[in-house]
Amino acid sequence: MGAPLAERLARAGLSVTAWNRTQAKAEALAPAGVKVAAEPHDLAGLDVVFTMVADSADLISVTERLLGDPAQAPKFLVDCSTVSAEASAEVRTRAASRGTAFLAAPVSGNGRVVRAGLLSLVVSGPRETFDELEPLLAMLGRHVSYVGEGELSRLAKICHNLLLGVVTQSLAEITVLAEKAGMPRAAFLDFINNSVMGSMFTRYKSPAFVRLDLTPTFTPVLLRKDFDLGMTAAREIGVPMPVVASAREPVQAAVAQGRTEEDFAVLLELQAAAAGYQIMPEDVPVDDGLGEPGEGPRRPAGDGT
Amino acid sequence: MGAPLAERLARAGLSVTAWNRTQAKAEALAPAGVKVAAEPHDLAGLDVVFTMVADSADLISVTERLLGDPAQAPKFLVDCSTVSAEASAEVRTRAASRGTAFLAAPVSGNGRVVRAGLLSLVVSGPRETFDELEPLLAMLGRHVSYVGEGELSRLAKICHNLLLGVVTQSLAEITVLAEKAGMPRAAFLDFINNSVMGSMFTRYKSPAFVRLDLTPTFTPVLLRKDFDLGMTAAREIGVPMPVVASAREPVQAAVAQGRTEEDFAVLLELQAAAAGYQIMPEDVPVDDGLGEPGEGPRRPAGDGT
Amino acid sequence: MGAPLAERLARAGLSVTAWNRTQAKAEALAPAGVKVAAEPHDLAGLDVVFTMVADSADLISVTERLLGDPAQAPKFLVDCSTVSAEASAEVRTRAASRGTAFLAAPVSGNGRVVRAGLLSLVVSGPRETFDELEPLLAMLGRHVSYVGEGELSRLAKICHNLLLGVVTQSLAEITVLAEKAGMPRAAFLDFINNSVMGSMFTRYKSPAFVRLDLTPTFTPVLLRKDFDLGMTAAREIGVPMPVVASAREPVQAAVAQGRTEEDFAVLLELQAAAAGYQIMPEDVPVDDGLGEPGEGPRRPAGDGT
Amino acid sequence: MGAPLAERLARAGLSVTAWNRTQAKAEALAPAGVKVAAEPHDLAGLDVVFTMVADSADLISVTERLLGDPAQAPKFLVDCSTVSAEASAEVRTRAASRGTAFLAAPVSGNGRVVRAGLLSLVVSGPRETFDELEPLLAMLGRHVSYVGEGELSRLAKICHNLLLGVVTQSLAEITVLAEKAGMPRAAFLDFINNSVMGSMFTRYKSPAFVRLDLTPTFTPVLLRKDFDLGMTAAREIGVPMPVVASAREPVQAAVAQGRTEEDFAVLLELQAAAAGYQIMPEDVPVDDGLGEPGEGPRRPAGDGT
Repeated sequence: MGAPLAERLARAGLSVTAWNRTQAKAEALAPAGVKVAAEPHDLAGLDVVFTMVADSADLISVTERLLGDPAQAPKFLVDCSTVSAEASAEVRTRAASRGTAFLAAPVSGNGRVVRAGLLSLVVSGPRETFDELEPLLAMLGRHVSYVGEGELSRLAKICHNLLLGVVTQSLAEITVLAEKAGMPRAAFLDFINNSVMGSMFTRYKSPAFVRLDLTPTFTPVLLRKDFDLGMTAAREIGVPMPVVASAREPVQAAVAQGRTEEDFAVLLELQAAAAGYQIMPEDVPVDDGLGEPGEGPRRPAGDGT
Repeated sequence: MGAPLAERLARAGLSVTAWNRTQAKAEALAPAGVKVAAEPHDLAGLDVVFTMVADSADLISVTERLLGDPAQAPKFLVDCSTVSAEASAEVRTRAASRGTAFLAAPVSGNGRVVRAGLLSLVVSGPRETFDELEPLLAMLGRHVSYVGEGELSRLAKICHNLLLGVVTQSLAEITVLAEKAGMPRAAFLDFINNSVMGSMFTRYKSPAFVRLDLTPTFTPVLLRKDFDLGMTAAREIGVPMPVVASAREPVQAAVAQGRTEEDFAVLLELQAAAAGYQIMPEDVPVDDGLGEPGEGPRRPAGDGT
Repeated sequence: MGAPLAERLARAGLSVTAWNRTQAKAEALAPAGVKVAAEPHDLAGLDVVFTMVADSADLISVTERLLGDPAQAPKFLVDCSTVSAEASAEVRTRAASRGTAFLAAPVSGNGRVVRAGLLSLVVSGPRETFDELEPLLAMLGRHVSYVGEGELSRLAKICHNLLLGVVTQSLAEITVLAEKAGMPRAAFLDFINNSVMGSMFTRYKSPAFVRLDLTPTFTPVLLRKDFDLGMTAAREIGVPMPVVASAREPVQAAVAQGRTEEDFAVLLELQAAAAGYQIMPEDVPVDDGLGEPGEGPRRPAGDGT
Repeated sequence: MGAPLAERLARAGLSVTAWNRTQAKAEALAPAGVKVAAEPHDLAGLDVVFTMVADSADLISVTERLLGDPAQAPKFLVDCSTVSAEASAEVRTRAASRGTAFLAAPVSGNGRVVRAGLLSLVVSGPRETFDELEPLLAMLGRHVSYVGEGELSRLAKICHNLLLGVVTQSLAEITVLAEKAGMPRAAFLDFINNSVMGSMFTRYKSPAFVRLDLTPTFTPVLLRKDFDLGMTAAREIGVPMPVVASAREPVQAAVAQGRTEEDFAVLLELQAAAAGYQIMPEDVPVDDGLGEPGEGPRRPAGDGT
C-alpha cells in the first residue's frame, strides 16, 4: 500500500525515493518518477521518510536500518502502518536519539481508496511537527486529523477498526434479516449504501456481500486481533464496551470454525447459517463506490480492510 | 418533513398542491409555488399524491379522508412516512379498492438532509408502478432503491434504524475510549467522519456528540421502539441478532433512567458515566457535513434522526 | 404434573378429589386414595381447589367451569400453572366475584422434582390467604416463598426461567470450552454440579448434556417465549438486561434453524458447532441428582424444564 | 483458607504439619492437633504436601523452598490454589525433577464452605496419582472430580468462575426486575435459592444482595481477571463465548467506576442504577445456606467468592 502513496507524491511533483524489501516493487514506481533506494539507510539523508509496513516487527526492523548511522538521519519520520502503540513508542525513542521527529500516522482505507484519492490519516506526535508536515500529509489523501501527542493515533486506528468490526457484523445481521424476508441483497445494500448510514466502507464491502466473493482483503484472524487490542486498551483505560464485546464473538466463531483464510465478509455467511438460511451468490453488478474505470466483477485481493 | 419535499418538486417545475393539518404550514410553501388544499380529499383528483405523516394512525386517517369518495381517487399514492407494515398493507388494500396503485417509500434522512438534496428513498410495491414513478421519486433526493413487492421497504427502513442504533452505541463506546485516553472528541470524530467508516449520519450526529447538545431530534423512546420492531421482525422471520440485541439494552437503560425527552445522543453521556468518566461539552465548531450556509453553532430541533 | 402433587396430598392423609380432561389420568390416582370428579364444577363445593394446567387459555376455561355456579364456589383457589399475569388477574377477578380467595402459586421443578419431594413454590395474593394456606402449600414440596400481592409470583417465575435460560447457554459455552480443551463432559459437569455453582437444575440437565439425549422436556420455542415475556416485562418496568438479552439470541438461532421440537439442551450442540467442534454422546452413567430408585439411563420425556 | 482444610485432616486423625508465612496463623491450628513447621523445606520429608496460596507467584516461591534440597522431597504434592496453568505446569516440572508426583486440585468454595464440610475439588494430573490420593482428597470436603491429565483442572476452575460471574450479573438483572416490580429482594431470592436454580453460591451470596453489605469476599478486579483468563483460554482453544463476553462488561464498568475494593456484589447496585432504581438495604435475616450455628447478621470478610 506504500506504492500508491509514493506514486501520489511523485505525481504531485515531489522528489520521491522508495525502498522495498522486494526491489521490483519499488522499481515498478519508476514510470511515476520515483527513484529506488537499495537500502533503508540510503533514505536517511532525506528530509522526510515515510514507512508503510506489515506489522510492528517490520517497523522496528526497518527503522533500525534507517537510523543505523548516528551521523545521518532524516529530519522527519512518518509511519503510516498499523502497529502497536508499544512499537510506535520504541521507534519514537530511537528517532529522538537521532534528532528525528516522529509522527504516528496510520491510515483509513486500502490501496484502492488511495488510488481514488480518498485516504484519510489520523496523526499523533509533537504538534509543531504535525503543523510543519500537514501540507505534505494532506497530499496523501483527502483528509488528515491530528488527535494529540505520543501514540494516540494508534488507539484511534484501533477504535476505527472496532467500529469496522461492529458495522460488519450488524450489517450481516440486518442483511440476512432483509434477505430472508424477501429482499435481494443487492437491492437492500444499495439502499443502505445510499442512505445516511452508508459509508465508503459499506460501499466497498458490498461486492463481497452480494457476490459472496471471499477472496481475502482482511481476515477474521486479523479482525479478532484488532478486537483484542481494543478490548485490552479498554481494560487499561477503563471503559466497558458492551456492543464491541458482543461483535467480537462471531469473529471468534469464524476463526474457531477454521474460516481463517477467507475475507472477514464470511461473517455474512455464518450469520445466514445461524439463521438457518442458505445464502447464495447474487450475480449482479455492484458499485463499490470507488469509481475506478473498467472495474470488473471481481476485486483483486487487496491490502487492507 | 413533507415541506422541503414539496418545495423540491415545486422548484423543479411541477404543479404541487399541499395539505397540512396546520394550514399555515402548507401556506408557508406558497413562495415556492405550492398551492394549498383545504382537505385531503381535495387532492383526490391529482395524478400522484404523496403522504408524509408522523405515525401509522395518521396515515390511516389521512388516507381515509383522501380516498373517501369512490368516484374520485388519485392514480398513484406514495407514502414516505415511517409506519408499520400492517398499516401500510391496510392502506394498500384500501387504495387498491379505489384503483389507486400504492408505493411504500420511507426515507433515510431528516429535513436538513432533504434541503441538502441528499435524501434517499427505499421503495416497495408493484414493480411497474415503481418504474413509472421512478423519475418523480428521483427528484426528491439523490437516490431511490427498489427492494420488492408489498411492504418490504418498511422492514428495510427498520433495518436501517437498527444499524443507526448499533452505530450510535458503538460510536459512544469508542469515543469514550478515545477521549478517556486523551483525545479531544472533536478530533477523534473528525477522523472517524473522514475515514472509510464515516457516514452522513456520523457527520450530522457529531455536533451533538461534541457539544453534548441533547436537544431532541430522535429520542431513546423512539429508538427503543424501532429496536423492538426489529427484534419482533427477527423473531417472525427467524434471525438471531446478537449485536443488535446488545445495542438495544443501553437504549433501554436510557429510558429506564428517565432520559426520555433528550436526544438519543444521550447514549454517549451514559457510556461515559458507565466508564466512570466525567464528560464535558467541547465548545468548538463541528462540521455536520450537510454544508448549509450560515449554519450556527446549534442545530434547530429537527425532524428525524 | 398435577398428578404427583395430588398424590402427595392424598398420601399425607388429606381428602383429595381430582379432575382431568382425560379421566383415565385422574383415575390412575385412585391407588393413592384420590377420588375422581366428572366435571370441574364438581369441585366447587370443596375448601381448596388447586389448578395445574398447560397455559393461560386452559386456566381461563377450567376456572370458568369451576366457578360457573354463583351459588357454589370453593373458599380458596390456588393456581400452580405457569400462565400470564393477565390471565391470572382475570381469574382473580372472577374468583373474587364468587367470594373465592385466589393465590397465584407457580412452581419450580418438574414431575420428577415433585416426586423427589423437592418442589418449591412462589406465591402471590392476599397475605392473609397465604398465611392460612401456607401449611397446605408446604405439603406440596420443600419450600414456599411469598413475594407479595397480586400477580407478582408470575413475574418471579419468569425471572426464574430467564436465569434458567442464561445458565443453560453459559453452561453450554463453558462445557464446550472444557471439552474442546480435553475434559470429558461427564467429568467437567460432575465438578460443576458438586461445586458451589451446582444446582438441582444443572444436575438434572446433565444427563441430556452428557448423552446428547434431546428428547424434549422443554423446547427452544417455549424458552424463547419465556425470554420474550421477560424482555417485555423488563421494558414495561424499565430495566436493561444485558446478559439476559445476549442469552436470548442463541435460543432464537435454535428456533431459526428448525430445532424446534428438541429439548433446549440443543443449545449445547449449537454451541459446539459454533466452536467448530464435533460433539459426540458420552455413554456413561450420569447422576441427575433426583435420586429416584431404579432410574435407568434415559429419562422419560418430562413435563417442564 | 488452608487453615480449615488442615484442621479437617487433623481432626480426622491424620498427622498434619503446617507452615504459613505468618507463623501465628499456623500456630492457631495447634488445638486441632496440627504441628507447626518453621520453613517450607521442613515439610519436604512428608508423604503428601498440600499448598494453598494466594497466587501463581506465591506457588512458585513456596514450592521452590519446599523442593530446594534434591536429597529430600515429598512423594506427593497437591496444590489447591487458584493459579495459572503456566505456573502449575512449571511446578509440575520442578516436582517431577525431584521425583514428586503433582496434582493440580483447585477448589470450589470459601473458608465457610470448608467448615461446613461442603467443599468440592477438581483435580488433574496423572491418573494413578489421583487414584492413590483420592481417599485423602475426599476428606477435604464433600466431592472430588477428576478431569484429566496435566493442568486441565486449572481451566475447569476458570470455567467455574466464568459461570459464577454470569450468574451474579444475571441474578442482579432479574433481582432488580423483580424488586422494581414490587417484590422484596429477600423474598425473591428466597424463592430462587430454594428453586431448582438455587445453588450454594446463590444462597451464600444472598446476604450481600439483600443487605447490600459490600465487605469484600472477592472483588470486581479479581472477577475481571478470571473473565480475562477465560476469554484468553477461549481464544486459544477456539470457542466463541457470547454470554460470558456480555457478562464481563458490567464487571469492567464496576472497575472503571472505581468500585475496586468492594465485593463483586456491587454488580447489583450498578444494575439498579442502570435501571434508574434507588436500591436500599433490607434489614432482614437471610439464610446463607451454610448452616453455621450462631451466625450473626454480618458475614466476616472472607476468603474467596
